[in-house]
Amino acid sequence: MSGFFDEMTREELSRDGRLRRQAMLMGGAALAATAAGSLLPGGARAAAVGGTGKPIDFLFAIYPNGTLLDFAGPNEILSRIPNTRVRFASPAGGPVTLEKGIVFGPTEKLADVTKVDVICVPGALDLSAMMKPETLEHVRRLSEAAQYVTSVCTGSIILAASGVLKGKRSACHWAFLNVLKEYGAIPDAARVVKDGRFMSGGGVTAGIDFGMAIAAELRGAEAAQQVQLLVQYDPQPPFHAGNPADAPSKVRDAVYKMLPGSKDGLMRPIL
Amino acid sequence: MSGFFDEMTREELSRDGRLRRQAMLMGGAALAATAAGSLLPGGARAAAVGGTGKPIDFLFAIYPNGTLLDFAGPNEILSRIPNTRVRFASPAGGPVTLEKGIVFGPTEKLADVTKVDVICVPGALDLSAMMKPETLEHVRRLSEAAQYVTSVCTGSIILAASGVLKGKRSACHWAFLNVLKEYGAIPDAARVVKDGRFMSGGGVTAGIDFGMAIAAELRGAEAAQQVQLLVQYDPQPPFHAGNPADAPSKVRDAVYKMLPGSKDGLMRPIL
Repeated sequence: MSGFFDEMTREELSRDGRLRRQAMLMGGAALAATAAGSLLPGGARAAAVGGTGKPIDFLFAIYPNGTLLDFAGPNEILSRIPNTRVRFASPAGGPVTLEKGIVFGPTEKLADVTKVDVICVPGALDLSAMMKPETLEHVRRLSEAAQYVTSVCTGSIILAASGVLKGKRSACHWAFLNVLKEYGAIPDAARVVKDGRFMSGGGVTAGIDFGMAIAAELRGAEAAQQVQLLVQYDPQPPFHAGNPADAPSKVRDAVYKMLPGSKDGLMRPIL
Repeated sequence: MSGFFDEMTREELSRDGRLRRQAMLMGGAALAATAAGSLLPGGARAAAVGGTGKPIDFLFAIYPNGTLLDFAGPNEILSRIPNTRVRFASPAGGPVTLEKGIVFGPTEKLADVTKVDVICVPGALDLSAMMKPETLEHVRRLSEAAQYVTSVCTGSIILAASGVLKGKRSACHWAFLNVLKEYGAIPDAARVVKDGRFMSGGGVTAGIDFGMAIAAELRGAEAAQQVQLLVQYDPQPPFHAGNPADAPSKVRDAVYKMLPGSKDGLMRPIL
């Protein structure tokens, strides 16, 4: 594991070095400093707001058939907050084939991750790759040691199945929300839910709001707002159909039909 | 190219077949039909709202050092609208190493793509991989033949550099917006901009709003709203700092300092 990250760090330094050299050709040191950190305050890591103290190890536990945006959303926030290292792990390690044949990597092997500050389990329709007892055991082990235990979308069902959400309030994709009860968790329809050291986001796109919320929790509101401005997170959906209460009834009824059980929050994920 | 997609289709059918079998074990054909399409109406492709007629070929032209969320956002919308095939291409083809060392694939080789209905160029700080004359020529060639020419974030600077945005209004990440003028395009600070067959989104997260807008354009408002409900796109940012006009002055000033030139929309991308 440490070898993997040593290598990543070397690669990143080398990439930043290349960018810095290119930037120097274009116009001087101030830009070069920016380029080194991409579009993020992390470029001036230790000096930035909220960036002092121990680095934060933030782990996304991803898996085959997972939904890309569930973690690509919060990753875009978390990878830009100061002094925070985003890591990806999966049951088998290496590149992971997500929904729609998208291949994402690299990932560490979940079993090789000893401890992280934050674990985040994103969602999918097909959760089967995470539902094996030995994989759930790694989720439980890392969750027990983590400062924050988090999820996006149906990732909360994986956390719940690992046993760590008993008696805890949690968000989930609206169509699956009440499945949480079957594992002793308390469904909460809010977009972002915090119950002590447990934080969760609702379906798919809620991962960005979750990302903002945990960024503020970890590094303060000002650091989170800086990243919000960097990624221009000023959402303006052209329609109001993002939850069953708001969607036009024709749209809602079509989706209820498409997702059996969803009307009662009891759609079955693939386990 | 066709070989690549034949293979993808076989893989997808085979994956769907596996999901369908698993779903059958869980509770019958209705769920199986859903599982086959993941969380999307595409499962019932031809029959779904807006899904009749010719399939749409939607191409994301991605590249090394690109920003994941710029295309992961709209992809999550576009890959779920009916009868639409999302493709990814890059200058060299194969897996692409994005910002922060993330590896994304597979991609076709841009030169091998003969024609698409929609081309979408996402953004980054470092646009250099797309700025080679032969690569810009492929962008221009595909744009001239496409029904819609689109971008997210600084992807519009790539389109503009290819020559296709002369006299056209376009969005861009706020920090880089006025760079568009240097290529004869007309900067527009709106989050999503449409000028005839040209559609564009602002910085990073604006890609989701852009995705919703073009989904509605391609397959109708009802199909777009169904996907909005599927991905629970009901954004609730915990802060109002997503554009320079809304951000607290302390936050805005810190980001202006971090991104030289951004105050005037004239931050320099790496070209």
